[in-house]
Amino acid sequence: MPSISKKGYNMPASPIRKLVPYAEQAIENGKSIYYLNIGQPDIKTPKVALEAVKQNDVEILSYSRSEGSDTYRKKLAKYYNNHNIKVSHKDIIVTTGASEALLFLFSSIMDPDDEVIISEPFYANYIAFSTASGVKVVPAVCDIDDNFALPSIESFEKLITPKTKAILICNPGNPTGYLYSKEEIDKLASIAIKHDLFLVADEVYREFVYDGHKHYSIMQVDGIDQHAVIIDSVSKRYSMCGARVGCLVSKNKTVMQTVLKFAQARLSPPTYAQIASEAALDTPQSYFDDVIEEYVDRRNTLIAELKKIDGIKVAKPKGAFYCIVELPVKNSDNFAQWLLEHFDVDNETIMVAPAGGFYSTPGIGLNQIRIAYVLNKESLVKAVHILKEALKVYKD
Amino acid sequence: MPSISKKGYNMPASPIRKLVPYAEQAIENGKSIYYLNIGQPDIKTPKVALEAVKQNDVEILSYSRSEGSDTYRKKLAKYYNNHNIKVSHKDIIVTTGASEALLFLFSSIMDPDDEVIISEPFYANYIAFSTASGVKVVPAVCDIDDNFALPSIESFEKLITPKTKAILICNPGNPTGYLYSKEEIDKLASIAIKHDLFLVADEVYREFVYDGHKHYSIMQVDGIDQHAVIIDSVSKRYSMCGARVGCLVSKNKTVMQTVLKFAQARLSPPTYAQIASEAALDTPQSYFDDVIEEYVDRRNTLIAELKKIDGIKVAKPKGAFYCIVELPVKNSDNFAQWLLEHFDVDNETIMVAPAGGFYSTPGIGLNQIRIAYVLNKESLVKAVHILKEALKVYKD
Ligand SMILES: Cc1ncc(COP(=O)(O)O)c(C=O)c1O
Ligand SMILES: Cc1ncc(COP(=O)(O)O)c(C=O)c1O
Repeated sequence: MPSISKKGYNMPASPIRKLVPYAEQAIENGKSIYYLNIGQPDIKTPKVALEAVKQNDVEILSYSRSEGSDTYRKKLAKYYNNHNIKVSHKDIIVTTGASEALLFLFSSIMDPDDEVIISEPFYANYIAFSTASGVKVVPAVCDIDDNFALPSIESFEKLITPKTKAILICNPGNPTGYLYSKEEIDKLASIAIKHDLFLVADEVYREFVYDGHKHYSIMQVDGIDQHAVIIDSVSKRYSMCGARVGCLVSKNKTVMQTVLKFAQARLSPPTYAQIASEAALDTPQSYFDDVIEEYVDRRNTLIAELKKIDGIKVAKPKGAFYCIVELPVKNSDNFAQWLLEHFDVDNETIMVAPAGGFYSTPGIGLNQIRIAYVLNKESLVKAVHILKEALKVYKD
Repeated sequence: MPSISKKGYNMPASPIRKLVPYAEQAIENGKSIYYLNIGQPDIKTPKVALEAVKQNDVEILSYSRSEGSDTYRKKLAKYYNNHNIKVSHKDIIVTTGASEALLFLFSSIMDPDDEVIISEPFYANYIAFSTASGVKVVPAVCDIDDNFALPSIESFEKLITPKTKAILICNPGNPTGYLYSKEEIDKLASIAIKHDLFLVADEVYREFVYDGHKHYSIMQVDGIDQHAVIIDSVSKRYSMCGARVGCLVSKNKTVMQTVLKFAQARLSPPTYAQIASEAALDTPQSYFDDVIEEYVDRRNTLIAELKKIDGIKVAKPKGAFYCIVELPVKNSDNFAQWLLEHFDVDNETIMVAPAGGFYSTPGIGLNQIRIAYVLNKESLVKAVHILKEALKVYKD
């Protein structure tokens, strides 16, 4: 039998999917599960997007341009300008989700053995895209005790080697909910410029910012044009993860021409999804106001309930819809599995994401989990109650 | 300014897209163009697929499973069984077009510097996916004078080195229209088994087979299970290129588990497009009968008209909707550009694909073009007339 590739062998399996068989078994055993493990919001997709697809008059479902349809890109440029990100449609390439944007960007700016510095803990699939590209992840470890703030500029610069090509942040962050301040973004920008690195910001949670804070994009920094690349997506913004539409934004023409070659090789992003995404740009502000209010409420409820549990630590998220929770357990992988296999309160249990997969530094995060507050408040209260009861009886 | 990657630098630009600015200029100058250059059929997408999307009742457009929705995969398995390809839904991973399936497969079975033997001329993007994966393409050159038949088994085996991991064919072929015989497929299968290689068949044109010939899939060969991988797509089958749904089919579990890890990293294939693709499986046979009849008619017209031109050579395609035409010119790149820039008949000209991009062997194919017969007969007759007149006056 011919063998698979080393790269394929090294690709990390999703840390969450390992738990799926246990979840399926739990359901078969008659348990119901509160899913705190994935970032699939329960929020309805804006009607205007859904209707545009239902009313479409396509007769031949043909390829769009590789860089995305012109009308969508032009409308998207307006959206960015309204968010103080001064770009034209030529600075945008539409991709099949932020996922594809990340994959194309990694291939476009890094060769095997090059290094990318990523603030840690990070979105687990950054490791997967790095592995797929043969790129080495160098973590800039952020600490739950510092609320996951950016490490000092000195400790950051120590991580830079001749092989470093880029710094990648997620703002606001998955899995931390951390929102970078203007000062931190400016600091990162100055490091990128000084060391001639790309500064890549995954801003898919741009709208999910709470407590009156304002999102400050890397592309608002003066003089960053040749270094900055934004990764974006409609998945979370409009609760349309299944559309598979994202984009890559940069004013660096060489980067854009290179990414376009990868985009051309795969022909085009999905057409129906572009119709939905274009229409979604007309979503009224009231939709976002409601959504933000809902998430703030959920977050407040979640944090308040969590704080009632002895021995746990949680950093209050300022954005996105995740938080990292440190538990009085040794290994959250085992704990998460145990919750599904051996625990319930009135036949209900919870599924959480062990945080190990969000770290590349060996040994850290093993006593942490990520909770996605994508359920309504009532469910969150019940879910945290289950967690509390579980911790009372769980033994590592 | 930070530099892009070597890989990105080496990514080939699409051979056709180089001509796009000239086409745009031609249109601005008031010319109309017959597009013979791309495989975007003018055939209508089946109503049943379009209607399914219009009637969808999605309220939250959520991620599907990474391997594709269960209902779609199960129905797809039935389709394959009806085509004598004996697989279950577990042997299928749904991808974002055949393009993504190829990219995932290359990464799953080959590391940088590994080699893949591809019968040449081939679909140009195979080079792009190889470059993206750092894989070396070793061409098995097929000759227009042999009607692009597979080279002898001996010359084929000479190409195999310790770095060879796979043989890739496209059946029926883009750009040749070549349909492999059962004997040729059996021969390839025996080579793959003997040398422990993967045998990959891009069968996206499976239905487009003419003159009473039958398509014989690699997965119909006995004993090939651990070696065979099929790449497939709804793009051409149902004239729904913009859906962006394809799949990868294999009974090799290690390959499937590895591909699944790449699939999980990008989360899921597009949801609307899966709705359309699932419904498309109910397309009545009459649709295909009509389409095949139409393509046969077009092909016959095209070949008959081309044969009237002195000094050109064309292999009669048995499948797909392309053919390679050898012209009495030195460089078809220049010729194709000249057609757009400097030639017209009554203000009409043609856009063709220079064939150089379909070869990796330097220097061959430079006097060839690919014609996609995706236009109606009347247009094809006019287009060939323009070609004929052009060749009368063109000087290299
Ligand atoms: C930080 C971050 N980036 C990218 C993605 C991928 O998003 P998409 O659905 O656009 O591929 C996700 C999805 O959860 C995410 O959390
Ligand atoms: C031979 C071949 N394989 C794969 C593809 C890509 O198809 P998809 O649209 O499914 O990505 C094409 C598209 O023209 C093709 O001709």
